[in-house]
Amino acid sequence: MSTALSRLAPTLLLVPALLLAVAAPAPSSPPPAGAEESSVAGIRSLARRLSGELLQRGDTMAALEELCRVAPRRLSGSASADRAVEWAERTMRELGLENVRREAVTVPRWVRGERERLVVVEPSLYAGQELPILALGGSIGTPTRGITAEVVRVTGFPELDALGREGAEGRIVLYDTPMQSALLDPFAAYGQAVQHRSNGAANAAALGAVASITRSMTTRVDDHPHTGGMRYREGVERIPAVALSTAATDRVSSWLAKGERVVVRLELDCRTEEPVESANVIGEVIGRELPEEIVLVGGHLDSWDVGPGAHDDGAGSCHALIAAATLKRLDLRPRRTIRVVLFMNEENGLAGGRDYHARVKDELETHVMALESDRGGFAPRGFSTAVEGKVREDLAALVEGLSELGAGRLFMGGGGADISPLARDGVLAVGFVPDPSRYFDFHHTTIDSPENVNPRELELGTAAIATLIHTVADLEARIDGKPPLTDRD
Amino acid sequence: MSTALSRLAPTLLLVPALLLAVAAPAPSSPPPAGAEESSVAGIRSLARRLSGELLQRGDTMAALEELCRVAPRRLSGSASADRAVEWAERTMRELGLENVRREAVTVPRWVRGERERLVVVEPSLYAGQELPILALGGSIGTPTRGITAEVVRVTGFPELDALGREGAEGRIVLYDTPMQSALLDPFAAYGQAVQHRSNGAANAAALGAVASITRSMTTRVDDHPHTGGMRYREGVERIPAVALSTAATDRVSSWLAKGERVVVRLELDCRTEEPVESANVIGEVIGRELPEEIVLVGGHLDSWDVGPGAHDDGAGSCHALIAAATLKRLDLRPRRTIRVVLFMNEENGLAGGRDYHARVKDELETHVMALESDRGGFAPRGFSTAVEGKVREDLAALVEGLSELGAGRLFMGGGGADISPLARDGVLAVGFVPDPSRYFDFHHTTIDSPENVNPRELELGTAAIATLIHTVADLEARIDGKPPLTDRD
Repeated sequence: MSTALSRLAPTLLLVPALLLAVAAPAPSSPPPAGAEESSVAGIRSLARRLSGELLQRGDTMAALEELCRVAPRRLSGSASADRAVEWAERTMRELGLENVRREAVTVPRWVRGERERLVVVEPSLYAGQELPILALGGSIGTPTRGITAEVVRVTGFPELDALGREGAEGRIVLYDTPMQSALLDPFAAYGQAVQHRSNGAANAAALGAVASITRSMTTRVDDHPHTGGMRYREGVERIPAVALSTAATDRVSSWLAKGERVVVRLELDCRTEEPVESANVIGEVIGRELPEEIVLVGGHLDSWDVGPGAHDDGAGSCHALIAAATLKRLDLRPRRTIRVVLFMNEENGLAGGRDYHARVKDELETHVMALESDRGGFAPRGFSTAVEGKVREDLAALVEGLSELGAGRLFMGGGGADISPLARDGVLAVGFVPDPSRYFDFHHTTIDSPENVNPRELELGTAAIATLIHTVADLEARIDGKPPLTDRD
Repeated sequence: MSTALSRLAPTLLLVPALLLAVAAPAPSSPPPAGAEESSVAGIRSLARRLSGELLQRGDTMAALEELCRVAPRRLSGSASADRAVEWAERTMRELGLENVRREAVTVPRWVRGERERLVVVEPSLYAGQELPILALGGSIGTPTRGITAEVVRVTGFPELDALGREGAEGRIVLYDTPMQSALLDPFAAYGQAVQHRSNGAANAAALGAVASITRSMTTRVDDHPHTGGMRYREGVERIPAVALSTAATDRVSSWLAKGERVVVRLELDCRTEEPVESANVIGEVIGRELPEEIVLVGGHLDSWDVGPGAHDDGAGSCHALIAAATLKRLDLRPRRTIRVVLFMNEENGLAGGRDYHARVKDELETHVMALESDRGGFAPRGFSTAVEGKVREDLAALVEGLSELGAGRLFMGGGGADISPLARDGVLAVGFVPDPSRYFDFHHTTIDSPENVNPRELELGTAAIATLIHTVADLEARIDGKPPLTDRD
């Protein structure tokens, strides 16, 4: 396997004169105040130009519609994920990105199968009715005859514990654990509630339950179940795990509240097969002066297997792709290299993010910043990073230049799952932050489709990302405060 | 007619002790710096509390759904507008607002009628096909046999002028005048393009045209026509005026570009009838210390006659209504009076805004601020005002306290149509600014419905507005820099 540096070697050979001409600033010297000011004016002007181009042309929306048409339901290891990889590589080449390549990644293969039903047995008044479910990714299936058992409802793990083995054994545990509407940040509400999806089956099985049902992760009350990942626990029985729509959860809970006995039959064909080979897809705009220094921009190419995966994360993939392609098209080649990485397997394994990290771990100092877009294609609000101190202040000053796009705030937060292995090793990780209000209306559902993406909102996100990565890649000094590569051995 | 002051007289009589106890600051003395800081902390805390309440309860969405169900298509002078007035008055009483009342307003009555068709005659290949139109508000109808004429396309008034009488006479002028997608602010794009809807018929008629068709005011290309207001001109023939969907406009233009002759038949039953009586609806939360000083918050109760009018302006009406009702419910009665005004007839006459101004014009100094929400129920971005100087700085400092709601920016801009007569006479006019990306997807269409309003986005708008009006109404000194009423004569 070639390393990032050896891959760049041919480029380096082509531009030695340029490299020698770069007057690298002393590592610790801040840019003069005047330069900072003119740089903010430059950011505003670039943001205006790029947003005008993108809003008029609609390139991101066109790419997203194509990806969702060519490769909907592109779960890792599926034929559709293979089509997504092919589409991404072909599209990068067509858009003129450089060093376009795949990097092989071994991914899990979970298959939903044909049969997926939750049927009411009791109350007898509703017997035979089907309730809208989706198996959770990673769940085992049921025997062919299904699993028929009484439903016991809990509002969380403390209530499950109180129930104990006596209350749970032989039963199906229903986690009626709503995301808290009152929280200002829906991602915080998701963070609180999602443990019941991730660990609900293992915790219920530890008390002898035969299956688990989790209320879908959304603040809306509707009939769309939301799938997502779950984990079994070593040494604990594996039991089937599904998500039930919020409206149906309320319905079942209302029966129980009236003292009705609720019995359901769960039938699932889902299964985990042997891991298969897939790929991250990478393309670049090679830096004109410091090509070996990299500003990474990415999203994840895989989605859940139930919908088009438009917001999650077709939007982020197309943000990254079109941001780089637009800079290339407009001949806005920055000093450093912009590297687009479309990661595979964010949804159920993070194999792509881990693999990328493993490949570059001996040359992490080449990575000046890694930016991920994985919060949907909504109107931009800003960016997030967990970094503190001067690097944060410098980044905040740049981001403030995006305020006309609505993207002027630097929030406290992570960068994104795929770049988290890089972040743990000290790479400056930044997340794109769009408006979060509608994300969980669509997240992991059949309706996460391009018609639920607003074209203006999507393109403004690309404009914000393109402006930021160009600016960071074109700064004289590294934004992350580290010395330039050219100063090292 | 009672004036606002005489209406408040009973209240004043009840609280003389309170009034005497108020230590009014000297008109020009700024609040101490410490107070300002604690005030910003107070704003943040209030914003958090109100957003939590509203996101959890969903009061604004519930009100909006009810208004749109009870009174969809509530154009001024219609039976539905009457139902909207009844609903507003009843709801204000139910929510515990004080001094609830109607103020009679004479409004125009324009009726769309039954028949509204644009039928292709040529190209013969498409003869008989109907193209999606809506008559513009105020348009005259056609004779019963319709108007059949050749279509001539222009991209704007300069091209119309170049066409001259020879090119326009006896023809139907098609204004293919797209809103410019590339502009960052869709309202700016609307501002540029909408003259062709407002004045297209008059300008075309001046050259002898027999009807005018305007491309719908949206950057989307779809099959939903967008209606809106138009004006005839004294001394110029009145000709029928319609809006054509953007997709159909592109279709007709493509025929013309191929050199095809395009002939259409326009059939319209619309007409203007005698003016009728309607009303503004008003309710208050009476100030605990300075009840005669008023912070007005409003939206407009009327809508166009084609859809539910959810974003325009059911959202603004419910923002104002629920903002005040929430403060009342939580016993957050500020020093000054909060007055909710739901204006009638913003869409085709502004009779409500003018009438309100006429009633209060001799006591304008009672109005500390007027805030209107008429840009839809999208995620809040901030507020706008045209005022400069210290008042702007003070307001910006308060608005900055709303940044956690995403509403921290004070933009340059007007307050809103209904409060523009107040603004012209020096009242501090402030507009609520939500994210503008999607507004013109729905504006003046059949699809401006509650299902296209996101509940979280809507409630966050109410929280931002409620926080700002409470804060302004509770400040020690008037935000508008004017002396307190109690210092006068």
